[in-house]
Amino acid sequence: MYLEKIQSPEDVKKLDVEQLKVLAGEMRQALIQKLSVHGGHVGPNLGMVEATIAMHYVFDSPKDKMVFDVSHQSYCHKMLTGRADAFLDEAKYDDVSGYSEPSESAHDFFCIGHTSTSVSLACGLAKARDLADENYNVIAVIGDGSLSGGEALEGLDFAKELNGNLIVVVNDNEMSIAENHGGLYENLKLLRDTKGQAECNIFKAMGLNYVFVEDGNDLTQLIDAFKRVKDSKAPVAVHIHTLKGKGYTLAEENKESWHWHMPFDIETGKTKGNYDGGEDYGTLTADYLLQKMKEDASVVAITSATPTVFGFTNDKREQAGRQFVDVGIAEEHAVALASGLATGGAKPVYGVYSTFLQRCYDQLSQDLCVNNSPATILTFCASVYGMNDITHIGFFDIPMIANIPNLVYLAPTCKEEYFAMLDWAVEQKDHPVAIRVPATGVATSGRPVDADYSTLNRYEVTEKGSKVAILALGDFYTLGEETAELLKKSGIHVTLINPRFITGLDSELLENLKAEHSMVVTLEDGVLDGGFGEKIARFYGASDIKTLNFGLKKEFLDRYNVEDVLKANHLTPEQIAEDIQAVM
Amino acid sequence: MYLEKIQSPEDVKKLDVEQLKVLAGEMRQALIQKLSVHGGHVGPNLGMVEATIAMHYVFDSPKDKMVFDVSHQSYCHKMLTGRADAFLDEAKYDDVSGYSEPSESAHDFFCIGHTSTSVSLACGLAKARDLADENYNVIAVIGDGSLSGGEALEGLDFAKELNGNLIVVVNDNEMSIAENHGGLYENLKLLRDTKGQAECNIFKAMGLNYVFVEDGNDLTQLIDAFKRVKDSKAPVAVHIHTLKGKGYTLAEENKESWHWHMPFDIETGKTKGNYDGGEDYGTLTADYLLQKMKEDASVVAITSATPTVFGFTNDKREQAGRQFVDVGIAEEHAVALASGLATGGAKPVYGVYSTFLQRCYDQLSQDLCVNNSPATILTFCASVYGMNDITHIGFFDIPMIANIPNLVYLAPTCKEEYFAMLDWAVEQKDHPVAIRVPATGVATSGRPVDADYSTLNRYEVTEKGSKVAILALGDFYTLGEETAELLKKSGIHVTLINPRFITGLDSELLENLKAEHSMVVTLEDGVLDGGFGEKIARFYGASDIKTLNFGLKKEFLDRYNVEDVLKANHLTPEQIAEDIQAVM
Repeated sequence: MYLEKIQSPEDVKKLDVEQLKVLAGEMRQALIQKLSVHGGHVGPNLGMVEATIAMHYVFDSPKDKMVFDVSHQSYCHKMLTGRADAFLDEAKYDDVSGYSEPSESAHDFFCIGHTSTSVSLACGLAKARDLADENYNVIAVIGDGSLSGGEALEGLDFAKELNGNLIVVVNDNEMSIAENHGGLYENLKLLRDTKGQAECNIFKAMGLNYVFVEDGNDLTQLIDAFKRVKDSKAPVAVHIHTLKGKGYTLAEENKESWHWHMPFDIETGKTKGNYDGGEDYGTLTADYLLQKMKEDASVVAITSATPTVFGFTNDKREQAGRQFVDVGIAEEHAVALASGLATGGAKPVYGVYSTFLQRCYDQLSQDLCVNNSPATILTFCASVYGMNDITHIGFFDIPMIANIPNLVYLAPTCKEEYFAMLDWAVEQKDHPVAIRVPATGVATSGRPVDADYSTLNRYEVTEKGSKVAILALGDFYTLGEETAELLKKSGIHVTLINPRFITGLDSELLENLKAEHSMVVTLEDGVLDGGFGEKIARFYGASDIKTLNFGLKKEFLDRYNVEDVLKANHLTPEQIAEDIQAVM
Repeated sequence: MYLEKIQSPEDVKKLDVEQLKVLAGEMRQALIQKLSVHGGHVGPNLGMVEATIAMHYVFDSPKDKMVFDVSHQSYCHKMLTGRADAFLDEAKYDDVSGYSEPSESAHDFFCIGHTSTSVSLACGLAKARDLADENYNVIAVIGDGSLSGGEALEGLDFAKELNGNLIVVVNDNEMSIAENHGGLYENLKLLRDTKGQAECNIFKAMGLNYVFVEDGNDLTQLIDAFKRVKDSKAPVAVHIHTLKGKGYTLAEENKESWHWHMPFDIETGKTKGNYDGGEDYGTLTADYLLQKMKEDASVVAITSATPTVFGFTNDKREQAGRQFVDVGIAEEHAVALASGLATGGAKPVYGVYSTFLQRCYDQLSQDLCVNNSPATILTFCASVYGMNDITHIGFFDIPMIANIPNLVYLAPTCKEEYFAMLDWAVEQKDHPVAIRVPATGVATSGRPVDADYSTLNRYEVTEKGSKVAILALGDFYTLGEETAELLKKSGIHVTLINPRFITGLDSELLENLKAEHSMVVTLEDGVLDGGFGEKIARFYGASDIKTLNFGLKKEFLDRYNVEDVLKANHLTPEQIAEDIQAVM
């Protein structure tokens, strides 16, 4: 086996093309084996085996520097840069992250997880090289799906300004996570159909030179192309046409399902274990919206290339027809589009992961909130229970968006409340509304919920006690209940409050609490800095009320264990109860 | 005079082309006259006179809907939609804002001020139209400078997905605010040089149809082109080549200076009044950086199309040579580029208006802070004293960026401290550092300042008193001094503290304050929600210390008077002193 012996790219260069082909087979086998046990990005890596080998065969990493966009397709790069064991030895599977990671290897330059950043980051490396009068190649690897993102397009446009070496490898597998959307994909098709000969060429129009590789899974073609562009003194796009999922038939045939996959049985492709956790908010949301769409032609669901975040699987997208819009990876456009739709009288609902909502702060502020456009945004995975890769953490949303004027950010505590809020948000015409979809599973509380949230910032007292009031926000409401239960055992009957509104204070209620309480406690499933609890602390700052804020420390965590993080942040019911009693 | 009689676009349609030419002359005259008295965007509006007339001649606003990018070029549109008086009658000059404004007219659909948003907003209107099965034209007007922004490129890419009417008027005047930067501008030149015939065409590559207008200041050519595309059933770009500043020779000859201008003498072009306020932080910063560049080839200044924000006038850009990078309107790219530069060993300094820093939240978080890249960001006009148009307010920066992990956000109180912090930021290798450049004018305090800020979150006690401690952040330090002075007259000798660090607490110092103080007061030149003061309130929440936070209410203000806003927010020294005494 060649792969076992690859300690560094130097070892790749010692092989001839036939041997490299054998190596490719071994890598593909290792990928399928690891992914079947571990889960991960299947299609993107299977498609990039040959291109990664060819890059390391031709270029001299780490002197030549490779930057992988999203870096979910960097598994093969890891295999060839001293990290093969993490793909061959099950005990070492977790030795590497799923993304490029400088702490793992001198061949990785950035910690990357969001799309469309590689060209700009690579431009920075290239410019630093030129300022230092050094000579080496800087290579950005970017998928066709990522090209629609504003940052990528800004980067491609800028590249020409470098007046120096920059190689952009465009991995065109004709797919984003789902199918591609946008006019530029017709140009990519034209380029594929004409073997790169068409005069109308998005890359040339952006000022880059251009090389086309017809079979991006053919080592000879790839090596030839990379040799042609190596040491190029001008930015050049190398457009390689690859097959997503190549070598694993199921992944080739159903590219969307196999973009990322849970552990699976290699023979059948079936997911291992029982992941049917019953209801989920994604599916429920899609079903709700589909019903709504049937009743109202102006309801329109928007995704930026992650349709399943709110349950829009392929069949549901078809059912929605023109009332479902996938803008591709283009979060900025998604929010501005929603604002335009709302201004035009439609009822847009944009479903998005919290971590990707970060990509449109200015659109939220300017296009949406300055204009007070009544669009609805559903924020998913905004929670310590969300994705736990450092680049995908979702618990920074409250400081980011809840401090933008005019936005109404709602925190439902249960299924009934979520759908009541969603229905209100879609039908009202006065505010941009975001809803923080609970990330702790679908829970029915049985509590009655309001249908109308148009009187803003009205909190709900769900349990009337004294001395201590707990404001338990959104999906941490249950934590509030558990804490209250514990305190009851110590003879303390607390007041429990469901704030519902993240974006404002119920001053009247807070004022009234002073009469029979000496302490107000806040619980939030997010970072404390700039969050909800601090507003409560400010409110009571000059009073005799003591405040205690529970939430997460401001830090980037990576691949964390939720229970550990909760404990470290004093977020178990026992810890909260103890802290409260200590202050009492 | 025709212009006086234009009540609505209907009146434009009644004129013949020769009469329209006379109207154009009158509009140009009115523009120059108003701008010479009032100040405003000179070049962009002078260039758009004929195109605006032609649009209103051909299309039927407000049924057909026009969206102006940035909307700084919408003065002519205002003149033709019932607002001519605001350009003819000096007493009414301030009846209209400098941007499109729905509250002024049914012909305006959005409040816009940031670049690159028009295509996406227009896509939303178009999609809403199609969902409602209605028929009308949606027109986005966008300048060549704005095309490089990610949101614009995302919108252009998406347009094809509409499968319906969308007309994008590309106003190509061969300029951004300063000169254009980016590869796509070579394509625009190619298109101009070939009269739109070149096959390689950025708009076609994005999936749009394309029409070229050689002279974008010729009414006949414009009317003809707009008639051709009216009621088009597919998105189409109408590329018009205009002359920025047309009709005012000085503006034609020096396009950058006349993009926006203070009131001026029409004959000489000289700025009226005495605006020489002495030193400014922009010029001082450019001079500092130019010196630094001479000593160190790795120092590089970055702008996203507003080079003069930190003093880089044309001559200073030339002096900086390859150590100055203008990325064009591409804030996302600017931050990612800075991260790449820092990773590559260079010393990047990105100077940016606070309001435009909003356009790169995700790049700050992901590209910069997750990677802990030692780049420096200088935030200008982050203050109630900054720009006061609703779309350009700069005082939301603290909640936005100071809650991102790893970032060190510094708040200098005076000139010496600013340059000490800047020098430290540029030379250190451990943190991404942002500096909130004071917006209250260049002030020398005479106080000694530290040269090293590597021990993070160390606040500075500048005056030791008791009972009350005032933490006066950044350019509100002076307000702290004035308040302390007032309180001294009432026999209260307060402790005055310069926090210096916005992004973290000096827990030791705050803890020690408890001994001799019963109240801690914070002052910040920014919105309170999610800001600095709330962190202090949280810190003391469970203690006996009372806290009072002074800052701005979370709201979008528009064309405000600073003194009024300060008073409304209890931000005069007298009000602060009173509030403190009331709590004591």
